[in-house]
Amino acid sequence: MKSNKLHQQLNFLREIDKLKGVLRQSPLLDQSRKENSAEHSWHLAMYALILSEHAAAHVDVARVLKMLLIHDIVEIDAGDTPLHGTQDSSQFEREKQAAERLFGLLPDEQGVELNALWNEFEGAQTDDAKFAKALDRFQPLLINVFTGGGTWVEGGVNYQQVLERYGPTIQRGAPALWELAHEWVMAHFDQSTTQ
Amino acid sequence: MKSNKLHQQLNFLREIDKLKGVLRQSPLLDQSRKENSAEHSWHLAMYALILSEHAAAHVDVARVLKMLLIHDIVEIDAGDTPLHGTQDSSQFEREKQAAERLFGLLPDEQGVELNALWNEFEGAQTDDAKFAKALDRFQPLLINVFTGGGTWVEGGVNYQQVLERYGPTIQRGAPALWELAHEWVMAHFDQSTTQ
Repeated sequence: MKSNKLHQQLNFLREIDKLKGVLRQSPLLDQSRKENSAEHSWHLAMYALILSEHAAAHVDVARVLKMLLIHDIVEIDAGDTPLHGTQDSSQFEREKQAAERLFGLLPDEQGVELNALWNEFEGAQTDDAKFAKALDRFQPLLINVFTGGGTWVEGGVNYQQVLERYGPTIQRGAPALWELAHEWVMAHFDQSTTQ
Repeated sequence: MKSNKLHQQLNFLREIDKLKGVLRQSPLLDQSRKENSAEHSWHLAMYALILSEHAAAHVDVARVLKMLLIHDIVEIDAGDTPLHGTQDSSQFEREKQAAERLFGLLPDEQGVELNALWNEFEGAQTDDAKFAKALDRFQPLLINVFTGGGTWVEGGVNYQQVLERYGPTIQRGAPALWELAHEWVMAHFDQSTTQ
């Protein structure tokens, strides 16, 4: 006997295959191509697994992992939002609708739970969400530092803008990571013509 | 003050970026290209998150997530092993060496823990590992079913071989998934010329 619940779950798992086709601004570290949001989500989950001791407060690693695994799924409908792109006030509304459609494919209880977890991530108020957000900001910064500037060079982003766009979120969720990242950023812009 | 431990952790996280460049035999569901092992690992972690109620025994979802996030990292050194390819007895030895090198980049305690978790997955004896293994076999089966045969058509794999290569592992870790998958496979081969 096939369960309707299992079919809903598999339908969701098939639908989110599309996240592998959503391209981010950041390249892979070998600069062979742009990173997609599915492999980015895997990498961020690994960051959480490895770096949880550096969180600002004690975090529930399993919850952070789940949050990071699902955090970008909304991009299947709403697209990626580049950090250094033009801000669009309707983007969050599109993402909320995407979350409702996508998590709505799941059995009720499961869909409600993941939608709540996604909203918690977006709200960035709990310790788990603050840490998850810090990693989501730290990972592309690391990529830029280790690819000679990456999206900062492409976007003409200067030292002050980097501090403003990355600093508060990383500092709040993972101060030890910001301490190191700040050093990297200072070194990068001292040697760069974009300062 | 920079911590040596943090540097080891970040060095590991940079090294595993290479998993995004390891290609699998399976395509994406839209058949636009082959899947890579990093996005496959993300997808499998999502399978575990969504399908844990279908495990043969009670599993610790957080442990299964961690296991699946790291299960293919050895492929950075050892390459992907296609299910329908020629079996190579030295492959497991290469993977063990890869696990030691890669997890050995981490601070001692963390490296030992992840190496043990990877060995647990490979051993496939605990309830968590049996479920993780079942998902790792079920996901490419689902891809083949929903892409008109995928690697089965390419490799000339017949009905009996599919039952033998996928059935025991999926049945043992997630019987409800095998019940459904078996129906899919029967339907697929009834309509196919490769039976």
